[in-house]
Amino acid sequence: MKNFNFCVPTDIRFGRDQIECLPTELKKLGTSVLLVYGGGSIKLTGLYQKIMALLKDDFIIYELPGITPNPRINAVRAGVRICKKNKVDVILAVGGGSCIDASKAIAAGALYDGDPWDLVLDKTKVKGALPIADVLTISATGSEMNPGAVISNEETKEKLELNTPVLYPHLSILDPTYLFTLPKRQTAAGTADIISHVFEQYFQKGDGAFITDRLCESVLKTCFHYGPIAMAEPDNYEARSNLMWAATLGLNHILTVGKGGAWSCHPMEHELSAFYDITHGVGLAILTPAWMRYVLEKDPGTAARFAMYGRNVWGIMDNKDGDEYAVGYEVDAEAATAAAKKAIERTADFFREMGLPSKLSEVGIGSEHFEEMAKEAVRTSGIASRSYVPLDASDIVAIYRSCE
Amino acid sequence: MKNFNFCVPTDIRFGRDQIECLPTELKKLGTSVLLVYGGGSIKLTGLYQKIMALLKDDFIIYELPGITPNPRINAVRAGVRICKKNKVDVILAVGGGSCIDASKAIAAGALYDGDPWDLVLDKTKVKGALPIADVLTISATGSEMNPGAVISNEETKEKLELNTPVLYPHLSILDPTYLFTLPKRQTAAGTADIISHVFEQYFQKGDGAFITDRLCESVLKTCFHYGPIAMAEPDNYEARSNLMWAATLGLNHILTVGKGGAWSCHPMEHELSAFYDITHGVGLAILTPAWMRYVLEKDPGTAARFAMYGRNVWGIMDNKDGDEYAVGYEVDAEAATAAAKKAIERTADFFREMGLPSKLSEVGIGSEHFEEMAKEAVRTSGIASRSYVPLDASDIVAIYRSCE
Repeated sequence: MKNFNFCVPTDIRFGRDQIECLPTELKKLGTSVLLVYGGGSIKLTGLYQKIMALLKDDFIIYELPGITPNPRINAVRAGVRICKKNKVDVILAVGGGSCIDASKAIAAGALYDGDPWDLVLDKTKVKGALPIADVLTISATGSEMNPGAVISNEETKEKLELNTPVLYPHLSILDPTYLFTLPKRQTAAGTADIISHVFEQYFQKGDGAFITDRLCESVLKTCFHYGPIAMAEPDNYEARSNLMWAATLGLNHILTVGKGGAWSCHPMEHELSAFYDITHGVGLAILTPAWMRYVLEKDPGTAARFAMYGRNVWGIMDNKDGDEYAVGYEVDAEAATAAAKKAIERTADFFREMGLPSKLSEVGIGSEHFEEMAKEAVRTSGIASRSYVPLDASDIVAIYRSCE
Repeated sequence: MKNFNFCVPTDIRFGRDQIECLPTELKKLGTSVLLVYGGGSIKLTGLYQKIMALLKDDFIIYELPGITPNPRINAVRAGVRICKKNKVDVILAVGGGSCIDASKAIAAGALYDGDPWDLVLDKTKVKGALPIADVLTISATGSEMNPGAVISNEETKEKLELNTPVLYPHLSILDPTYLFTLPKRQTAAGTADIISHVFEQYFQKGDGAFITDRLCESVLKTCFHYGPIAMAEPDNYEARSNLMWAATLGLNHILTVGKGGAWSCHPMEHELSAFYDITHGVGLAILTPAWMRYVLEKDPGTAARFAMYGRNVWGIMDNKDGDEYAVGYEVDAEAATAAAKKAIERTADFFREMGLPSKLSEVGIGSEHFEEMAKEAVRTSGIASRSYVPLDASDIVAIYRSCE
């Protein structure tokens, strides 16, 4: 295992009616609150009214509605202005990863004198942040228990990550019943996002981190088991609760300890979202099987890990003599490659079964920006140097083309 | 999944040479330090000298050596006296779970006016604690990332747990190379302890916490895979690092979220240790298979979970039609029972292969206190009311007898 630090201080309150703790816990962080939310679905579900009723007596509440998917730096700037003008103590995000990510950038921007986009470009300029609490209504990004925020800049067509320890939320309220009203396409895209987060961490050199690989497989099994159940029965508490916790564990650092390396599908997808504003999880579902096929072809040595994935997650047992848990297909490269291909196609089938597209044309993306997007993916990430199979711009264009 | 809170703020520094961070990180907690350690093995390995060299310039160090396995309240009292007399800022435990547990009780006792045993008997009397840092040299109890401490009272023959959130260590340094010098019997007993922690959490009602069950199986696979490797090759870094992190995850709350219930083998074993001062992990290795056999017989409904364990951890596939991951043997009770028995005997075999005893007579324990110990186990735990299969004193005596 590689050396690692692990310190995840977020206070998670998980389950039905955990919202009741909000007044008590929020008061520990302050009484002047900026409420950050999205398009207003929380008013339709009654969550907005519930929170207002809980907070009305002891808190001053300012509001920043209208946070969009792929949250924009302009919304962050608006939030920062409210915080500075009103001496806000604490940010309360109510929504999904976009609301939490915007809130993190606002929290850091509120304690910074310049334009908050400076902080996205250079996190060393972050000198502190207001405390953040959140009530999660879409489960996917894991933002509720990590210190990262992805912010888009429409003018420069950039979508970049700000990640620094002061941005861990202090309090995250996760009530799976809030997911009951999610549209199917969001359930599908969210599940694809969780799965991709796990893949990005799992498909790295093992470095002897057996335990971390097993934990990754546990979260993948959970997604594959409960994704279809949540699609068919949106109010299935068991499915929603397992997926909700899978999303949190998917990106709270526990699946990467002892391993590590740059990600692959996320930087390629971030360009799709930046250029075309498509749903992140949809882009990932399209790119992931294409990326898998491409890297298996480019580096046949990856077959062992893809076959291990197939064996431990999907029960694909082509090589019965291999080690049951660890990378163990080296003994028979042909069997490993066959198992790897089956595992990849099983993954593609899963995304299709979830109703997700498998081609860029299905989401209105043509080939016009492939080169430009590929160059940006290389420029803004470690994909060409530190990812599982390093890919340059021409590789990325080839992967985009295979999804046309 | 059951509702849960999860907040584990300990700062983990894992890997080779992480000790180098000690001066910087410890200074954040204070400069007047009580160093708590055991029988002096850290002087033989050079760790004591290394720490003294790192701290000599900027810290005042008081020492409490001689902490024993099953740490005593008298040692805690001695530590509390040193803290109060010298205005100690921070406790630094260097050792295994016993040193950390003693340090937690000292940390709480230092901020309490009465006898620290009061706190063990009634944790609501804990009003605060000095910060705790630790350098782990034996990996098993998980104390480095949880707020629990088990303290023994020789006079009253009690071994009880103090558990309250202020006792989370602030900083835990986990360097797997420190485990290279562990004697085989400690490696074996430590591995049995980790496994038992996972079993205590895994063998509970599932409550739909699929993901948590899968995480438990991941940690079990890690122990079963690397336990024998660490026995054969004490300086195998991959084995030591995976086992070290398995121990931490084994009892840092992540394996119990969404589930829960009282433990079974630990309360029964605590009485063995309290009456006979045997090694905790050795007692667990003796009792665990006996407990499994007994509860499977007493409640045949447990067969599904034992069979799931056998299938997902050991690859025992008697019922190929069952659900691959979840409790899925209900369809065929006979096949489930057969698989359950195989899984239990495979577990017993593992402990034997690790060189651990399987009978109480092997560790010098006769039947003279069975009734008394059984009553104490019931009195001091939830085993008779809230455990996987509730057991009264006569059940416990029967389990002890089956280990004679």
